[in-house]
Amino acid sequence: MPTPFQTKRLVEFSDTDMAGIMHFSAYFRYMEAAEHELLRSFGLSVYTEIDGAAVSFPRVAASCNYSSPVRCENVLDIDVSIKRVGTKSVTYVFRFAHQGRDVATGEMTSVCCRVIHGQPPVSMPIPDSFAQKLREMVGA
Amino acid sequence: MPTPFQTKRLVEFSDTDMAGIMHFSAYFRYMEAAEHELLRSFGLSVYTEIDGAAVSFPRVAASCNYSSPVRCENVLDIDVSIKRVGTKSVTYVFRFAHQGRDVATGEMTSVCCRVIHGQPPVSMPIPDSFAQKLREMVGA
Amino acid sequence: MPTPFQTKRLVEFSDTDMAGIMHFSAYFRYMEAAEHELLRSFGLSVYTEIDGAAVSFPRVAASCNYSSPVRCENVLDIDVSIKRVGTKSVTYVFRFAHQGRDVATGEMTSVCCRVIHGQPPVSMPIPDSFAQKLREMVGA
Amino acid sequence: MPTPFQTKRLVEFSDTDMAGIMHFSAYFRYMEAAEHELLRSFGLSVYTEIDGAAVSFPRVAASCNYSSPVRCENVLDIDVSIKRVGTKSVTYVFRFAHQGRDVATGEMTSVCCRVIHGQPPVSMPIPDSFAQKLREMVGA
Repeated sequence: MPTPFQTKRLVEFSDTDMAGIMHFSAYFRYMEAAEHELLRSFGLSVYTEIDGAAVSFPRVAASCNYSSPVRCENVLDIDVSIKRVGTKSVTYVFRFAHQGRDVATGEMTSVCCRVIHGQPPVSMPIPDSFAQKLREMVGA
Repeated sequence: MPTPFQTKRLVEFSDTDMAGIMHFSAYFRYMEAAEHELLRSFGLSVYTEIDGAAVSFPRVAASCNYSSPVRCENVLDIDVSIKRVGTKSVTYVFRFAHQGRDVATGEMTSVCCRVIHGQPPVSMPIPDSFAQKLREMVGA
Repeated sequence: MPTPFQTKRLVEFSDTDMAGIMHFSAYFRYMEAAEHELLRSFGLSVYTEIDGAAVSFPRVAASCNYSSPVRCENVLDIDVSIKRVGTKSVTYVFRFAHQGRDVATGEMTSVCCRVIHGQPPVSMPIPDSFAQKLREMVGA
Repeated sequence: MPTPFQTKRLVEFSDTDMAGIMHFSAYFRYMEAAEHELLRSFGLSVYTEIDGAAVSFPRVAASCNYSSPVRCENVLDIDVSIKRVGTKSVTYVFRFAHQGRDVATGEMTSVCCRVIHGQPPVSMPIPDSFAQKLREMVGA
């Protein structure tokens, strides 16, 4: 059973709202940043040139469930695991905890796309260089 | 069958990303703004004083599915309907379209809470003034 | 003496922070949105194709002075005027007020650039179609 | 001559815009995060309870000058120095560089305030615990 990728993130003042807690939408940026950090740990980038075309991973789905509020300067422990790697898509699962207590869980499905600026992204099979690394983490 | 609440929103430059499209996380802010606009249309506010305590609606769940990318200065048509009103929570459904074509659908569950600054929000029954208005829209 | 361009904007919940007021960085997004709305009122766009190249207006300077805090659901009156149009740059001045009281003033200098994706923007003279409209507003 | 406080920050995908570069407004959030990291290095927090009241540092002025665009996954070196400590305010100067090349410089003036939720912040003298640490860095 592969180990989840682990990272940390400090909740910034600008991510809080007038209820005194982190705004729910910030979790989606934190998930994306953790996804990209995972890719970098593989030597990959979320926006890369492959065979002369820009390859990126726009989302088709994103969700988050919140169980406990977090506050400014809380340090979140983030576990990233991979639920599924399809031909063209990857589904990541995120677990956020603060001081050992779960605070949120998220899921995000990204589709591999050729991106030509000014045109809609076109889905494509995940390049082997990515797919192999991602598959090794499935079930993490 | 109640009519959904309808609003519009122009995609701003700062909501785009280097792939040339609106960033997926911006939809969550757009959903929240549409939710609050719906509450204002009822004469309500998302952050209000009731019987001497601040009452607000933090989220317990949020999700979005994306079917087509949108770009800077696209005007999105947003339909907000209410799927369910519980004793303490409301579930909203959002439909985003651009020029008659669906581009995303979202869902968000907010829980009515008493908010005392510096303490965790405490869930409470939705006040009658809110509940009555929200229930009239169920199934919209 | 030309009249400033006028627009309004409601302070959204996601733009507030834990101090209960609008976060100072949100003003910069509001300035940009007002700048783009001014350009649209001229029939122009902030990101446009001219002679086969993308033309945009990255900033070289931005500043804001804050005199009074604003809160969620406050409606801001925004006046945009143009201080100077150079060969390649435009300087905008913004005045934010709430219920007749000044709350902030900002300034932003944008430089006309040819933007080729993946390369640094290259400054260029403001196209005549833009320059003429902008000059009519100088001193507004 | 005191040494500036130094930190690093990776440019995230969500901070880029459709011109392919980091959005100018993100620098203001980066400045704030660096300011708070500096305060933490002193054992202080940007939002703290002193003598039973919340003390925070809203801004009265913020500005940034941009000399070169930065891109996703660029690592920025950020130097924070303190230009002036007044009775009630602090002025920070920020220098952003990428691979040894200056890309932006910013300045921010924060005012020490007593913050009572739902009321306008009221300026107050900087508490001695903060003022002493900040003064040691003047001229950094």
